[in-house]
Formats: sequence, C-alpha cells, structure tokens
Amino acid sequence: MTLAKVFGKVLKQRREFLNLSQEELAFEAGLHRTYISLLERGVKSPTLNVLFRLANALDIPASQFIQEIEVQLKTLEFYEDSED
Amino acid sequence: MTLAKVFGKVLKQRREFLNLSQEELAFEAGLHRTYISLLERGVKSPTLNVLFRLANALDIPASQFIQEIEVQLKTLEFYEDSED
Repeated sequence: MTLAKVFGKVLKQRREFLNLSQEELAFEAGLHRTYISLLERGVKSPTLNVLFRLANALDIPASQFIQEIEVQLKTLEFYEDSED
Repeated sequence: MTLAKVFGKVLKQRREFLNLSQEELAFEAGLHRTYISLLERGVKSPTLNVLFRLANALDIPASQFIQEIEVQLKTLEFYEDSED
C-alpha cells in the first residue's frame, strides 16, 4: 500500500468520525470536493499546505495526522513481514 | 512567514545538526541537491512523499518533523500578536 493510500485512508476515517461529508470537508479546508475524493482514494498525494489545511479542518494537529499514518504504515509492515 | 519557509528552516536546522551537506542529504533521500536548496529557502513546498523521504534520511519520524514546524509556527504567531 502506498503512502498516498494510507494518507487517504486516515483522511476518510477522520472525516467519517466527525460525520462530515466530502463537500463539508472541502468547504472547511477551502479545497475542491473532487480533490478530497482523489486524496481519499490515494490517487493524489497532498502537499504540505494541503496537509495543514485538512488537519485544521479536521480539528487535529498535522503532526497527529502524520503520526496516525506512521502507525498504520508500521502495522502494514508487520503484516507484510508475517507473510514471509 | 509561509509554511514552506518554516519547513525549509526546520529542514536546514536538522541537516546542519547532523553535519550533513545538501549533497549528502540529497543522496540519502534520493532527491536532487538543487531541490533541497529550493526547499530550504522555502521556494518549493514538499509533497507528503518528499516529507517522509527527508524525515527518513534525517533519522526522525515525519510526525516529529511536523511537530517542530507546529512549534515554530506557534512561536511566530506569538511574536506577530505582540506587535499589535
């Protein structure tokens, strides 16, 4: 799983946890709804600016957002290692 | 000060702390030396992928890198507020 895909997964989880639609999140972050959809599917990778705008709209520090990605990446590594 | 400029400052501080040249960091991260220079000067803003590659080359978690940016952004806000 690519970094962009893990980012998209964390983004979607946090958005759904806050009961926000993609439209609402897009509005809050000043981004386009289509762009949110591309990010959540891991088709697009965010810039640093977009990361901070999304974290702000999702009421978490950007560092916590990244930390969640690191946790999920480590979990993936664990399962990939167990497949050997 | 823009987010890109704060990122560049943190990047340079960490690189110099480790006594790495821009060339050495570029090699470690698999990026071009010119790109490191543009990032450090805040001319370019990194993508999520570049953030993780740089953090890895600089031996810190990407989340800690971002946390350092958050600390510096808060300090800047403090000084900007005091100017009123």
